[in-house]
Amino acid sequence: MSQPLNIAIAGLGTVGAATAQLLRDHADLLAARCGRPIALRAVSARDRSRDRGVDLSGVDWVEDAANLAKVPGIDVIVELIGGAEGVARELVTNALAAGRHVVTANKALIAHHGSELARAAEGKGGSLRFEAAVAGGIPIVKALREGLAANGIERVYGILNGTCNYILTEMRETGRDFNAVLKEAQKLGYAEADPSFDIDGVDTAHKLAILAALAFGSEVDFASVHVEGIRKVTADDIRFAGELGYRIKLLGIARRTEAGVRQRVHPCLVPESSPIAHVPGAFNAVVADGDFVGSTVFEGRGAGGGPTASAVVADLVDVARGARVPTFGIAANKLAKPRPVAISGHRGAYYICLTVRDMPGVMADVTAAFRYEQISLDSMLQRGRAPGDPVPVVLETHACEEAAMARALAKISKLSSMLRPPRMIRIEAF
Amino acid sequence: MSQPLNIAIAGLGTVGAATAQLLRDHADLLAARCGRPIALRAVSARDRSRDRGVDLSGVDWVEDAANLAKVPGIDVIVELIGGAEGVARELVTNALAAGRHVVTANKALIAHHGSELARAAEGKGGSLRFEAAVAGGIPIVKALREGLAANGIERVYGILNGTCNYILTEMRETGRDFNAVLKEAQKLGYAEADPSFDIDGVDTAHKLAILAALAFGSEVDFASVHVEGIRKVTADDIRFAGELGYRIKLLGIARRTEAGVRQRVHPCLVPESSPIAHVPGAFNAVVADGDFVGSTVFEGRGAGGGPTASAVVADLVDVARGARVPTFGIAANKLAKPRPVAISGHRGAYYICLTVRDMPGVMADVTAAFRYEQISLDSMLQRGRAPGDPVPVVLETHACEEAAMARALAKISKLSSMLRPPRMIRIEAF
Repeated sequence: MSQPLNIAIAGLGTVGAATAQLLRDHADLLAARCGRPIALRAVSARDRSRDRGVDLSGVDWVEDAANLAKVPGIDVIVELIGGAEGVARELVTNALAAGRHVVTANKALIAHHGSELARAAEGKGGSLRFEAAVAGGIPIVKALREGLAANGIERVYGILNGTCNYILTEMRETGRDFNAVLKEAQKLGYAEADPSFDIDGVDTAHKLAILAALAFGSEVDFASVHVEGIRKVTADDIRFAGELGYRIKLLGIARRTEAGVRQRVHPCLVPESSPIAHVPGAFNAVVADGDFVGSTVFEGRGAGGGPTASAVVADLVDVARGARVPTFGIAANKLAKPRPVAISGHRGAYYICLTVRDMPGVMADVTAAFRYEQISLDSMLQRGRAPGDPVPVVLETHACEEAAMARALAKISKLSSMLRPPRMIRIEAF
Repeated sequence: MSQPLNIAIAGLGTVGAATAQLLRDHADLLAARCGRPIALRAVSARDRSRDRGVDLSGVDWVEDAANLAKVPGIDVIVELIGGAEGVARELVTNALAAGRHVVTANKALIAHHGSELARAAEGKGGSLRFEAAVAGGIPIVKALREGLAANGIERVYGILNGTCNYILTEMRETGRDFNAVLKEAQKLGYAEADPSFDIDGVDTAHKLAILAALAFGSEVDFASVHVEGIRKVTADDIRFAGELGYRIKLLGIARRTEAGVRQRVHPCLVPESSPIAHVPGAFNAVVADGDFVGSTVFEGRGAGGGPTASAVVADLVDVARGARVPTFGIAANKLAKPRPVAISGHRGAYYICLTVRDMPGVMADVTAAFRYEQISLDSMLQRGRAPGDPVPVVLETHACEEAAMARALAKISKLSSMLRPPRMIRIEAF
């Protein structure tokens, strides 16, 4: 048997513990698949006394995670601490500078510093791998970097955050409002105590920026992602969308155009008939459109110990087998510079929900504002209420420019008959 | 720029021409992704004069494909001739013996001789790659060999033949019978003039045997696949299945059990609510269940020039990047010997369609035969017809042993009231 691949794990939370467990459970299988054993030599975690349900006897404990990069004889540092800065960044930077391989599940780190870290890795002959950073156990990073490498990729999009997908699914199935479902999700452990990274779309944006870099061969450009979360989606919106034949999903969508790359994260109305509409609860799904392969779909569990450990260890298997693939599929110093395209140039259909005082002339004012911007309406829902009561008016438009829609809504929101700010959700046809 | 990867293509049919086209269209992109150009140096095809719509100037023509293995300076032979024996086998064997890399789309060759060819490749330090042999453009071979390599895979199954899926989809949507839809599919080019490999399940069985070897780390064991095709599926079956909440799909299913590996290809009733029920027309879908990752789904176009070329060139990219991964994910000389498990030990629910003469006591005889084998019924459909007319009786059973079902059906088929042999289709719950 060849030399073992010696690894160290920084961070023994859910994912770290599951990774250690997987390495133990499948030691023989992994040795057969890699042609050499994967040996866990050292770990670092905040609380040494906690029982993590996995036997770590014979493994060195290192107090300061940043020092793991200096432990002699370690081939790969597995960074499972998280966060774009601080210890995680320091450890990864040091490890790559020392020519070591790094495997990480840290989407924030890769989204913010991926290009720079890739250059550091490739400059020293180490590899930087992050399959676990996007869509949990789905091997989508490998698919874009290798499996679909023959294609010009035109678009990549998907459901990348299980927390949001769970909340939206629950809202639809139970008719409850966002806040009630969020509270329950927190109780059940499906949402964090501070859920803002998930529900405000930041987590999805991290993952989308990484997918876009892989798909289009450009530097990671998290700063240019247009991000909207799901806080403002109401139970009414979900019900109205259903009546129009749609479901609401939080999508990340990256598209390559002549002008550059447009990256956006926001709630979308997707047709009831599209596969993406049926991705359940905590699952993730990614669709990649290639010019030769056509549309390909990848679906699986997007989070949790087991699925994420599966991705972490797949990266370790690659390293153990001696894989040498550029970090983002093209040498880091040859990645294209970002050419972001603003959301204002987006063109698509829109769902609009207005809350109006039921009085004569309201719809005349609203439709005049749309006509002025040459936005035409596809359908309209209006329910009669008691006279004088607030009335929801739902409009579905044909495709128009985002900038025109923004101007029309600015005008409409100033009408005296508007009782609340208009709500707008983009419709994706696929 | 490093040395180019020099390749030769044997076979310039739809896939060969699309591969040559892709290599031309994406020459720069591929050079960037591989760190070196991929150069098409030689081709061999039956008819030199045919216009294939792709510029082959500067490429050597070799009359006898088997001689491509001897052309000096070729790094990779791309075998797109097809067939388990003959020129294809000779060429691949010679190329591997000469230490060259081989990329092939030839599922029959790999299903019949995969283990032996893998040993030949690995013995000489070459690689044998066949992403295009299974599920067209979907990178499922790579997913099982690498992306999911951290898992013990318990089951892999899917829709692996677009022709069958197209025919079954059309039958359901139009209510027409098998023969009518097959004829139309042949006219449209979705089915071959001799369709038996597709509709009798052989093509699906080839692909399933390859997937099973990758998933379970065992030698390819095509001979043990239980194979039934879709010729006997009737428009009635599809309608009755729909009434019971199912669709009919031709699936390949491989499962690892304590006793060994069970591989089977046959029409299945799948619940209307399962994702696999909704895979449309010419698409393929593969589901892999891993012990850590859970269930993962891969979907895309399963055939055609573009998708298959995408897979062929992905393999070339791997070779160009210097990937060194065992052919089936474990060194060929360490793959487990086949331990096949017969279909008679299968346990599951069944759809049974009987055509009976409407006379007293028929159902008593039928139900007695099931009771004798301790098979219990879940539901029954029976439509009244004119007295004396043939009556279809549809039964859905609870899970039972295949052997018990076979015995019951043997008895039932001998009843004097039976006007046609009973039709049986297995139900898969997922």
